[in-house]
Amino acid sequence: MIFYYGDKMNNFNEWFHNILEEAEIIDSRYPIKGMSVWLPRGFQIRKHMLNTLEELLDVDHEEVLFPMLIPESELAKEAIHVKGFEDEAYWVTKGGKRELNEQLALRPTSETSMYPMFSLWVRSHMDLPIKVYQTVNTFRYETKHTRPLIRVREITTFNETHTVHATVQEAVEEVEAGIEIYKTFFDELGIPYSISKRPEWDKFPGSLYTMAFDMIMPDGKTLQIGTVHNLGTTFAKTFDIQYENDEGEHELAHQTCYGLSDRVIAAVIAAHGDEKGLCLPPVIAPEQVIIVPIIFKEKEDMVLEFTDKLEEQLSSAGIRVKQDKRDIRPGKKYYEWEQRGVPLRIEVGPRDIENNKIVLIRRDNGNKDFVDYDSTTIIDTINDTLDSITDNLKTNANKFQDNKTFIVDNLDQVKKTINKKGGIVKFNWCGNTDCGKQMEEEFDIDVLGTQEADIEDKKCIHCGEDAHFMALVSKTY
Amino acid sequence: MIFYYGDKMNNFNEWFHNILEEAEIIDSRYPIKGMSVWLPRGFQIRKHMLNTLEELLDVDHEEVLFPMLIPESELAKEAIHVKGFEDEAYWVTKGGKRELNEQLALRPTSETSMYPMFSLWVRSHMDLPIKVYQTVNTFRYETKHTRPLIRVREITTFNETHTVHATVQEAVEEVEAGIEIYKTFFDELGIPYSISKRPEWDKFPGSLYTMAFDMIMPDGKTLQIGTVHNLGTTFAKTFDIQYENDEGEHELAHQTCYGLSDRVIAAVIAAHGDEKGLCLPPVIAPEQVIIVPIIFKEKEDMVLEFTDKLEEQLSSAGIRVKQDKRDIRPGKKYYEWEQRGVPLRIEVGPRDIENNKIVLIRRDNGNKDFVDYDSTTIIDTINDTLDSITDNLKTNANKFQDNKTFIVDNLDQVKKTINKKGGIVKFNWCGNTDCGKQMEEEFDIDVLGTQEADIEDKKCIHCGEDAHFMALVSKTY
Repeated sequence: MIFYYGDKMNNFNEWFHNILEEAEIIDSRYPIKGMSVWLPRGFQIRKHMLNTLEELLDVDHEEVLFPMLIPESELAKEAIHVKGFEDEAYWVTKGGKRELNEQLALRPTSETSMYPMFSLWVRSHMDLPIKVYQTVNTFRYETKHTRPLIRVREITTFNETHTVHATVQEAVEEVEAGIEIYKTFFDELGIPYSISKRPEWDKFPGSLYTMAFDMIMPDGKTLQIGTVHNLGTTFAKTFDIQYENDEGEHELAHQTCYGLSDRVIAAVIAAHGDEKGLCLPPVIAPEQVIIVPIIFKEKEDMVLEFTDKLEEQLSSAGIRVKQDKRDIRPGKKYYEWEQRGVPLRIEVGPRDIENNKIVLIRRDNGNKDFVDYDSTTIIDTINDTLDSITDNLKTNANKFQDNKTFIVDNLDQVKKTINKKGGIVKFNWCGNTDCGKQMEEEFDIDVLGTQEADIEDKKCIHCGEDAHFMALVSKTY
Repeated sequence: MIFYYGDKMNNFNEWFHNILEEAEIIDSRYPIKGMSVWLPRGFQIRKHMLNTLEELLDVDHEEVLFPMLIPESELAKEAIHVKGFEDEAYWVTKGGKRELNEQLALRPTSETSMYPMFSLWVRSHMDLPIKVYQTVNTFRYETKHTRPLIRVREITTFNETHTVHATVQEAVEEVEAGIEIYKTFFDELGIPYSISKRPEWDKFPGSLYTMAFDMIMPDGKTLQIGTVHNLGTTFAKTFDIQYENDEGEHELAHQTCYGLSDRVIAAVIAAHGDEKGLCLPPVIAPEQVIIVPIIFKEKEDMVLEFTDKLEEQLSSAGIRVKQDKRDIRPGKKYYEWEQRGVPLRIEVGPRDIENNKIVLIRRDNGNKDFVDYDSTTIIDTINDTLDSITDNLKTNANKFQDNKTFIVDNLDQVKKTINKKGGIVKFNWCGNTDCGKQMEEEFDIDVLGTQEADIEDKKCIHCGEDAHFMALVSKTY
């Protein structure tokens, strides 16, 4: 019986939920709303995802780990920041049966746990820059409808980078560096994105500005998948992060922070999955290759001898490979590994061995390839195929995002396009907060942000003032 | 100026605190008592420690991740268990400004978050065994004096394994397997231990029995560094973890769990550190080898050419190596890397190169060895030296534990030995709870537990009843 995942495009929720369950990624039946269990297969995907990200961060950042609880007095210090988070912080008020003297927040994000320590760490310009990151669980008391991996109350996988610099210029450069890291990371996972500068009213509370990555989901709504913030000196002022410069004067430090979450896994699933279930890019697949020996009674030894050798060979070359020797129909095996999103399947039967062939079946496009087995070139062949799968997944996902991104030149089209086609709509905009907020209300959309564009003598399509940017608008998660 | 760490044996606290600070392991100035920050160097040690452990667990267990919050109703379900933890659980009572309908505990340990899910996962004997582990942060509202890594309120590194089995026998075997894993793990880190079965009144709340690993610290008190529990069917009853056997009857599952924490790092520091600071076993050292080129003005290129090649060669062989090219006195470099516990230092100067020699200096015993540089054998030489360091650290640490473990045959000696020499005192014991608790009070010691021994016709040295075990007693952390 073939499992029906539902219609990815027209009923994304059902399809997504089914994937999480059938591919054994998470179990969302935990007895607290908005909190889920990472199952072994999901955990492995998460781990490879984090390894991929951390390899990029490790080039120029160091990993640390800060406490999970934040005293109310610290969280409340930065007035604008706390306003952004106070309604969604969980509060610990009791230890055992005793009331605590001061209530403690479960970190909603870690600025206010880290920056009091940065204040101790930074004395002179010699202590700068600080460039650290951590991967932790954070908590948001979401009152909106929760959705596994997308809108959760425990973000189990919050990867946050925090940096401190001596100059404005270095902070700006770090924002650019953060954007480049995320671009590389999303590209490796084949996740498409549009980058924009969030509007004033939607930037990170306490920041100068926020650069954001948004992916268009199958249902046409956008999902924020990463943000990079220039914090200026706001937090340095609040938490007293000062350094002595060469002249012996005290100066405020300049800061940035950027983050990603579990949503990356949601984005991968949404970008590449299909009617057969999960489809994983090789870089994060727990098994990149599954070998299925086709066993007939008399030829069993011959086949297994071959597939064991093949498995050993791929494994030695650093390819994550598994062989499925279970005594069940090959068809059932194919079906299961396809559901689980394994990028490449190798089938080997007695006749293949006689003909010195192996069969490669790609998960991304279903192509079946009979290739000559040559022990000196097989690793290259497999690696090339895996690379080709990565490229194809990325190309298709980017195509979807491009095809769902529309440039329009009048207001009518904004609403029509969003409602009929979904996706991101771009147009000339003045950039004013009043104008933007009015649009959001009128059209029931969100202004994702702005991109610089070559706009000369153009007018804002909403208010008619001079246009300064391209606005990106969409329905959002 | 040489930093004075304090007297490891006579003022362990001061010495330990200084190591944490000077070797940049954790910063304990976080504004909540009992919660600390892992600094970049400490984080790397922690990471290698976890990799070492997880490699052992991964052979037969799968990694998962459960939510951090536990509803009060779940935590309270198992009556004996909750009694053991209710006084030290932190409680979340508010989300934003709202009171929650049900208060949520920060996990003190994860039985009650995992087992409601196991109940859903287990249907038939085909679903068994379940063997999973996770590494998470857990919380204890400690009212006792806190101490970094040893007695903390946020255990940032709780590695806990949980298993479910169809039969009693399998659960017993898993307990044995868990003990073997921990033995191998501690051996790799050169951490000495005594294993005993905790007395009835000190076993894990809700378990049948608890096997525990204790290390004798420099001050003579013992530190519990790992525990393995046979949970029997207690939790299976409470959380309804039942399976259908071959005959279609429902049976309760048998469970085990075992865990380790941040204390492993404390144990490593305590076991191997000395008056020069931290001393790390190679398996968890962020840098296993530090290369210090001795640079003289005219010979700089020649030396760096050689050390660059050497670094590259070691690195390719999978050795974690770093080269210190900073423009400061070599003596200062030696001192710093010794403080940080790097197992092996390689010094190379122009004359060494001319003589085709390199100098190996071991951190564990300070031995200085001039070895011939031969590119075909150098990797073996380095690896052999690293192995020898591991062995030496382990041998010395075990010797300390052995020398501090005393067998006595009368009550007088128990108290005298503990007070004068510290460590673990062993003697013939009846095993009765009343007798044991009385001893604990009389002598101001803790009964760690019992070991099986060949005791025939011997009497309990305390109450005079028949002896059944060797008791292990000590002062404890």
